[in-house]
Amino acid sequence: MNKTIILDKRPVGRPQLSDFKFIDGEKPLPGNGEILLKTTYVSVDPYLRGRMIDAKSYVPPFQLQQPINSGMVAEVMESNLEGFNKGDFVSGMLEWKEFQKSDGKGLLKVDPSKAPLSAYLGVLGMTGMTAYLGLTEIGKPQKGETLVVSGAAGAVGSIVGQIGKILGCRVIGIAGTDEKVEMLKSKFGFDEGINYKTTKNMKDAIAELCPNGVDLYFDNVGGDITDGVLANINKFARIIVCGSISVYNEISVPMGPRVETVLVKNSALMQGFTIGNYAPKFPVAMGQLANWLKEGKLTYAETIVEGFDQIPQAFIDLFEGKNNGKMIVKI
Amino acid sequence: MNKTIILDKRPVGRPQLSDFKFIDGEKPLPGNGEILLKTTYVSVDPYLRGRMIDAKSYVPPFQLQQPINSGMVAEVMESNLEGFNKGDFVSGMLEWKEFQKSDGKGLLKVDPSKAPLSAYLGVLGMTGMTAYLGLTEIGKPQKGETLVVSGAAGAVGSIVGQIGKILGCRVIGIAGTDEKVEMLKSKFGFDEGINYKTTKNMKDAIAELCPNGVDLYFDNVGGDITDGVLANINKFARIIVCGSISVYNEISVPMGPRVETVLVKNSALMQGFTIGNYAPKFPVAMGQLANWLKEGKLTYAETIVEGFDQIPQAFIDLFEGKNNGKMIVKI
Repeated sequence: MNKTIILDKRPVGRPQLSDFKFIDGEKPLPGNGEILLKTTYVSVDPYLRGRMIDAKSYVPPFQLQQPINSGMVAEVMESNLEGFNKGDFVSGMLEWKEFQKSDGKGLLKVDPSKAPLSAYLGVLGMTGMTAYLGLTEIGKPQKGETLVVSGAAGAVGSIVGQIGKILGCRVIGIAGTDEKVEMLKSKFGFDEGINYKTTKNMKDAIAELCPNGVDLYFDNVGGDITDGVLANINKFARIIVCGSISVYNEISVPMGPRVETVLVKNSALMQGFTIGNYAPKFPVAMGQLANWLKEGKLTYAETIVEGFDQIPQAFIDLFEGKNNGKMIVKI
Repeated sequence: MNKTIILDKRPVGRPQLSDFKFIDGEKPLPGNGEILLKTTYVSVDPYLRGRMIDAKSYVPPFQLQQPINSGMVAEVMESNLEGFNKGDFVSGMLEWKEFQKSDGKGLLKVDPSKAPLSAYLGVLGMTGMTAYLGLTEIGKPQKGETLVVSGAAGAVGSIVGQIGKILGCRVIGIAGTDEKVEMLKSKFGFDEGINYKTTKNMKDAIAELCPNGVDLYFDNVGGDITDGVLANINKFARIIVCGSISVYNEISVPMGPRVETVLVKNSALMQGFTIGNYAPKFPVAMGQLANWLKEGKLTYAETIVEGFDQIPQAFIDLFEGKNNGKMIVKI
């Protein structure tokens, strides 16, 4: 028995359970130079929605009737591969299967004694590195600047805000419930928060909380929220476009106010960030994040759902904002 | 008698002659430390439209009932200021007046024996430096890359394309008449041109002429043309947003497809360019442009209109695309 989740239909609009299919197979037998892995933790992320569309992007689209993959932590059950032993834990891009074999390429050994295993999918994984490298490489924050983060209670956003504080910025977070806004301030140390669902005029709300304007905008959301922030940017503002969860499920091309004039008026920069381009900087980034974590300067939130069968629902719930911080499925 | 042009009404939509007013005054008397200037050439530029709106931007708005200013070349008629002699020519930001006095601040002496005086408003002035610094500082062109230029037959665009060719790019220009497209190729050495007015599907037209995609886009125009180019950008594309003549006269905020997803998918950069931020690099830029001009690698087009009274109409004609290259009024 080895359950696998495949993409059965390409979602139209918001993904549904019926877009996914569970199939059953044999537990694989690792050959020479291979290891057998048992899935421990599965990361579900908004960007996976983009891979469900059959279009050119920075990662190839998922194929229909094939397993989906994402960041995962797994345990080595059998090893015919030097450097990996039974009982080791690894992280990497793996398929949504209970068991799978691997030749070890692209896998990283992770140490459960140094941090909880789930952290290697979050603050010490792609999530944390996206926050750190997006903010520092594109944003280049300066002490005293004002940073606005959208999707601030999400996995990336909550880390971005904390790094902003560590680097001396005033940080304002935008999230979708009062509880999340409260958490931004009490748990993650943001200076202020905005509940976009109860805010009528985002432009005015940002203006009120950012009397000196916005120097940095780390955008995980896009859409109307971005319009409100852009109306308040300062000269030389940097806009890190990390994701657009608000439009991932749109069926037609989303429209909005054109940004050209705002960019020219403010000599502002808007750049798409994709973690894959920064691989040479991963070790430094991970080291910095681990240090901050150890020093207690960085904390993180996780929403952990249990059970392999819950993976598709956990993914769907991202678009309802049901997660606080990183959404992870524990097997 | 000393005619002056003031902004009488803030234009709504396309500027009209009635937005401007001619008033008459005395010829000023230069005091100690001052010079008397007689206007020789006046530059009219699309960006002046932005200054006619009462809104925060990178340059302060024009005040109603006050003279408009722009880049000009003038002759020194009288001098009570060391370093300036009768008969010298200067360039700088000056007021739309036949005669004015100045304390010399911000003025640059220009030499009519080295280049035609009008060139100091174009290829050797802000226009040329905008093309050079915008393309090199934000765009960072690499040999073999594909560069698309909108407003390609305009003052800035025609120089951008030539610099792109000097730096080893394949260059495609977008302009508004078949004559302009022909000129791009025959006079300025562009590889290909597109007449956007006779092109039904800009996205397809760009795709056809850019089989390897678009690495660099120097945008003077904005709007639908930009949408067509963005649909063809490559990974790591750089978009230099220099101007948006297509939307300057819009009364409501112009809408268009949101760019966030395009930027993320392609790890692309979009940055507003304003020449004023690059003042420390002016001498190097001007030196480089003067060398290329001397070596015959760079040529330029001018549309010269004669007569002080023609300044407002020449400005209005910019928005009809009546100019080839730099639009200048000779007094």
